Amino acid sequence: MSANKVNEVLIKITHTGLCGTDIHAIGCNSVLGHEGIGIVEAIGSEVTQLEIGDRVGGGFLRNSCGHCKYCLNGQDMWCYDRDIFMESDGSRQNGTLADYYVGIETYVYKIPRVISNEHATPLQCTRATVYSTLIESVNPGQRVGIVGIGGLGHLAIQFAAKMGADVAVFSSTAAKEEEARRFGASEFCLLQEPGSINKPVDVLVIAGSAYPEWEKFLDKKVLARNGIVIPLSAPDSMNLPGGPMLFNGYTMKMSLVATRKVHRDMLEFAALHSIKPTVETFELSDSGVAAALNKLKAGTMRYRGVLVAA
Amino acid sequence: MSANKVNEVLIKITHTGLCGTDIHAIGCNSVLGHEGIGIVEAIGSEVTQLEIGDRVGGGFLRNSCGHCKYCLNGQDMWCYDRDIFMESDGSRQNGTLADYYVGIETYVYKIPRVISNEHATPLQCTRATVYSTLIESVNPGQRVGIVGIGGLGHLAIQFAAKMGADVAVFSSTAAKEEEARRFGASEFCLLQEPGSINKPVDVLVIAGSAYPEWEKFLDKKVLARNGIVIPLSAPDSMNLPGGPMLFNGYTMKMSLVATRKVHRDMLEFAALHSIKPTVETFELSDSGVAAALNKLKAGTMRYRGVLVAA
Repeated sequence: MSANKVNEVLIKITHTGLCGTDIHAIGCNSVLGHEGIGIVEAIGSEVTQLEIGDRVGGGFLRNSCGHCKYCLNGQDMWCYDRDIFMESDGSRQNGTLADYYVGIETYVYKIPRVISNEHATPLQCTRATVYSTLIESVNPGQRVGIVGIGGLGHLAIQFAAKMGADVAVFSSTAAKEEEARRFGASEFCLLQEPGSINKPVDVLVIAGSAYPEWEKFLDKKVLARNGIVIPLSAPDSMNLPGGPMLFNGYTMKMSLVATRKVHRDMLEFAALHSIKPTVETFELSDSGVAAALNKLKAGTMRYRGVLVAA
Repeated sequence: MSANKVNEVLIKITHTGLCGTDIHAIGCNSVLGHEGIGIVEAIGSEVTQLEIGDRVGGGFLRNSCGHCKYCLNGQDMWCYDRDIFMESDGSRQNGTLADYYVGIETYVYKIPRVISNEHATPLQCTRATVYSTLIESVNPGQRVGIVGIGGLGHLAIQFAAKMGADVAVFSSTAAKEEEARRFGASEFCLLQEPGSINKPVDVLVIAGSAYPEWEKFLDKKVLARNGIVIPLSAPDSMNLPGGPMLFNGYTMKMSLVATRKVHRDMLEFAALHSIKPTVETFELSDSGVAAALNKLKAGTMRYRGVLVAA
């Protein structure tokens, strides 16, 4: 492989993450992987911001048109001609779960020195979503509820706490309370009894792999009136109760990964506050991928699988 | 009746509207009416902003605590101790579909001189919602879609057009195209074929009495990515498709009537731009109310019923 186009860089993958989105992509005749870290090994003739030897990451948002209203406004993620993981033929042939990944210079990100490869990997994908949604919707001092402590949730707690929010966590697993508090939560509630919360939250982040019982959560004792709900994934259709939505003035806000500017900010924020995903490592080999996939499918990954090249 | 409390005013009702919300309230052992216009006939000892003889309106938001975070921030509508139509025992005994209505001085609004009683009436209730949602979400020059031309929709078109938006209307009735354009729309599409729109809208206002087929409208050809959907009522649960919501980055925003500040702004805006609801008048009498109710229930009111005191 090479950097075929003048603005591309060839990245030798050293670490790549495995994510629920990859599971959906299996059987689509596509190279998997959309959160990779590696070393730049070759650069196109017009690359000016990266050099051979740079440590970079990326893999979800791969291109956008550069001239539409979204691109001109820094909202590249919404560009109608965006290329995200699996969205174009080209991106199906180019994943980070491979020896090499080819990225456009301005769609890969230099990794801050203080973030290790293992920790940088999960930050490239939906972890960027977590930061993006929080930085857009949360003011310091507000109360934030995080539903689910998993790949997304355990980072959401850390990001929100470091942004100065007061974090409440909802989980079905009572045994996770201690860990939630270590990540920065000040309150822990069982998922089944959100109404037991001391005080309503202003922003509610749905970070689990399934939607919660909306009637229980879209209640003014749990989510303050005029509050914001942010589902980080789309496991299903959302059957929302119209009355409570209207009479409590809720906003439902969807966010997909992050724009490039926010992605950079996220890496700097994680470096500044030593925010680290909890990872399990596997060998980047057939058997390593199989083992990681099994663990991911079984729902026992704590919390993010990272495949490491030999 | 009298202004019992020091901050109350006694209003002799001259005009009052009839609205779908009143139909829901029938059988709840409550005085109906939440959009009334009348003349101040008596004032409490501490009333300073209104005088006997003033022409005022109001009736939906009736009180709020004045000291919570919402009230301090001008968001009185979300106050946990708010009193809206039908929400408290007191407000059940005090409706605008009556000879007199008692309002707290700062929860009723002086009517600008250029707005007639008939036209002022429907502006007191959900018409305020229309203005409130648009002023919060629409920038001049953006494209706004209005779904449904009825009591809410026909005013939404006018407000949006006067705010400098480019307005597209979706209606199931082809015969309403001419009227939609007269209200200010630049494009008209059949509700059944929203995909026929020339260019996606940035904000989509659901102004009908039923939700549209979400799959058809939550499509990037109809609503631009990162766009906002605003349902103005809650006829049902909202069964939203998760995938398109997430991958197009949509926001669903609920809005309930208007805060007092926005209500005042709305009256001034309507006066400035001569925005007028289309009304049918009835006598404020048993037979007049019965006739108006029948028309409202049959869905043939064009577009808002106003009951006029003899």
